[in-house]
Amino acid sequence: MLEYLPGIRRIDHIAIVVRAIDDALVFYRDALGITPSAIVDVPSEGVRIAMLPAGGPGGTKIELLQPLDPGNSIGRFLERHGEGQHHICLEVANIDNALAALVERGVPVLDQQPRVSAEGRAIFIHPKGTHGVLIELVEMGATEHV
Amino acid sequence: MLEYLPGIRRIDHIAIVVRAIDDALVFYRDALGITPSAIVDVPSEGVRIAMLPAGGPGGTKIELLQPLDPGNSIGRFLERHGEGQHHICLEVANIDNALAALVERGVPVLDQQPRVSAEGRAIFIHPKGTHGVLIELVEMGATEHV
Repeated sequence: MLEYLPGIRRIDHIAIVVRAIDDALVFYRDALGITPSAIVDVPSEGVRIAMLPAGGPGGTKIELLQPLDPGNSIGRFLERHGEGQHHICLEVANIDNALAALVERGVPVLDQQPRVSAEGRAIFIHPKGTHGVLIELVEMGATEHV
Repeated sequence: MLEYLPGIRRIDHIAIVVRAIDDALVFYRDALGITPSAIVDVPSEGVRIAMLPAGGPGGTKIELLQPLDPGNSIGRFLERHGEGQHHICLEVANIDNALAALVERGVPVLDQQPRVSAEGRAIFIHPKGTHGVLIELVEMGATEHV
């Protein structure tokens, strides 16, 4: 029996789905004063992402997510729920160990193995196992580009 | 005309409404391994709060919020939406300056003056001004107890 824990290091980001990043920046950048560190398209996920380092380098970021395709999961979220909070992302030291620890405890994960995300290798946990919050766990990796 | 910005320092916490903190800790504490730094009742707000320092001291925390009265705003949120993300809280250096800066820009604030919160003096911004997220701004103060 495994006895280790997922090894949560910090909250990497809070993801908010918006209709258009340019419009959302009127609030987050111009009114709150948080300058995006990056605005990038991630065609493999069908999204445009703006990263807002609200706490400076190394701090927890706000991630604005704009669907580039109304038919993908972020597009459907927007259609159903409107703009708003989508998931929170926690950084772990080792995603394979974290996944094994969660599976061993019966936590309902959405990925049987890590997927490649914008920041590294990641898995998602279903909200039914987290008291209502979609949670991403990520191991920062060489693919990091935001 | 005022020209300053609210002066966001960092994301202090992400608040999640849960039915019962004891049940939620089976996931957040036992499965994820995040030990609460405090579990306190705040009778003035009708809530029990568990603070989970996911990123260690000074990092962004997860705040679990359990209503102690089904009729208050957190209780009604739970009744309408079920468990899930409720608000995010950003720390500012000076809450009076932040409020003035937001009002001057026409941002829809829910408080005409700062209220006393669990951590200091705070205001809330309506989700209609933030692209769907209830946002709290707080100036950490002498009333901090969590």
